[in-house]
Amino acid sequence: MPRSAPLAVADFPYFSEITTRWMDNDVYGHVNNAVYYSFFDTAVSGFLVARGAVDFTNGVVVGLAVESRCEYFKPISFPDTVRAGVRIGRLGTTSVRYEVGIFRNDEDSAAAQGHFVHVYVERASGRPVPLPAALKAALASLVRS
Amino acid sequence: MPRSAPLAVADFPYFSEITTRWMDNDVYGHVNNAVYYSFFDTAVSGFLVARGAVDFTNGVVVGLAVESRCEYFKPISFPDTVRAGVRIGRLGTTSVRYEVGIFRNDEDSAAAQGHFVHVYVERASGRPVPLPAALKAALASLVRS
Amino acid sequence: MPRSAPLAVADFPYFSEITTRWMDNDVYGHVNNAVYYSFFDTAVSGFLVARGAVDFTNGVVVGLAVESRCEYFKPISFPDTVRAGVRIGRLGTTSVRYEVGIFRNDEDSAAAQGHFVHVYVERASGRPVPLPAALKAALASLVRS
Amino acid sequence: MPRSAPLAVADFPYFSEITTRWMDNDVYGHVNNAVYYSFFDTAVSGFLVARGAVDFTNGVVVGLAVESRCEYFKPISFPDTVRAGVRIGRLGTTSVRYEVGIFRNDEDSAAAQGHFVHVYVERASGRPVPLPAALKAALASLVRS
Repeated sequence: MPRSAPLAVADFPYFSEITTRWMDNDVYGHVNNAVYYSFFDTAVSGFLVARGAVDFTNGVVVGLAVESRCEYFKPISFPDTVRAGVRIGRLGTTSVRYEVGIFRNDEDSAAAQGHFVHVYVERASGRPVPLPAALKAALASLVRS
Repeated sequence: MPRSAPLAVADFPYFSEITTRWMDNDVYGHVNNAVYYSFFDTAVSGFLVARGAVDFTNGVVVGLAVESRCEYFKPISFPDTVRAGVRIGRLGTTSVRYEVGIFRNDEDSAAAQGHFVHVYVERASGRPVPLPAALKAALASLVRS
Repeated sequence: MPRSAPLAVADFPYFSEITTRWMDNDVYGHVNNAVYYSFFDTAVSGFLVARGAVDFTNGVVVGLAVESRCEYFKPISFPDTVRAGVRIGRLGTTSVRYEVGIFRNDEDSAAAQGHFVHVYVERASGRPVPLPAALKAALASLVRS
Repeated sequence: MPRSAPLAVADFPYFSEITTRWMDNDVYGHVNNAVYYSFFDTAVSGFLVARGAVDFTNGVVVGLAVESRCEYFKPISFPDTVRAGVRIGRLGTTSVRYEVGIFRNDEDSAAAQGHFVHVYVERASGRPVPLPAALKAALASLVRS
């Protein structure tokens, strides 16, 4: 897979601020690569909760991750603050591709960027179902033009 | 051990703001109890880094945790924000007891509180050593009156 | 609080084996102190699941942590394996005190030890309730003599 | 990106056993998607440590992640045990692509699979350098045929 060019702050319509933690730093003093996916999750879930677009505890349909990817351009270290930008790469019938840019402190060029794909399924059966209308409406504003 | 009464914001001279993460929530939808100790670490390390009081990568003496404790009064859940208050309970010759209060969003009564004790040791030998003077000076302002 | 003497493998009736992870190591190359509480949780939950003593997803009563503590005697580092010993310090009407010893690889003396207290509450109301009979029966075998 | 077919145990020459933790489970009772990358890291680091192929604390060259990806086929939940299979997809001059399969308990078909790419750099300057000869020799046995 070819390397992408780092995205800029202006490429994202929504941001979530995330503080790094002492434990995020690994032996080399950098935020461990797995933690970035937790930033992805946190930024997207934060948007969904703020819009009231999901009910994590009682919802009958849930979004399951089927794929995720991240490219790392430069390290982040505690106590840096992260701004995580979110946009929608593809809004399908039963799935959505969230694209996330991870910006260090007030930098304009992404330190890392990636995406994950959620497929919506009926919680009980696991069968794919259309994205709930309220979710789709909330996400529409983030679709990349 | 007897249960303590929850401390208030006014009981702490220093605060660090920490954002919760989607992954912090456990099956019950509450921040897992182990994560609170990561808040402790993060608040104290953040203070030390901000004051230039430690050198995590090259320091010849390091603080090792020998004890930690937390009492939980009410749950915190993502996407809550945490304010972690720090004060020094005891500033000894070779050890320091950090006391931390975890406040949910803008609440004034601690959702949880606890402490941990760092003993300073020479990195190479593991032998206890006096707290570095620069560290002791930085900590003095946080000592509980 | 006075320091305890390290417990031995023979002090615990039940063990759970837990593998350390690369991410557990902090900047100093040791398992971060917060991770030990995750070992506590994992060992106790593992016992409860193995005995069929809890239903994490549908149970109407749940155990909430109200207090936890850990003493650290010597460091553990990835790729060490942990044996976590569990015993019950106190089995009350509405609460249980789990005591956990953390042993490094095949060592006999605890590298760390501590406890946490679960109070059982009705999930909907949060009111304390008696421990379910099935849970109490499962725990009886672990009560420290 | 097209979806891959799940790999089998026979596709991997090396395995690392990893125990899941109570905290790995998210609100839905499944291991959170970010945790899989910690499995990747742990399996590969475990191999490197076992072969004495790296010196995490004093090495002058280090492997930095520049890209990672995972596809998820079926959920894993605590207290499942994970077998993480490792193979080398590409062994370059200054980089290596580790491919990892995540198998649930004794299943033969991967529950998830992915890869990450390490570029080797001089720790002080950050400049790419050839993989150390000892590392390259250790990895040769894992190269996918």
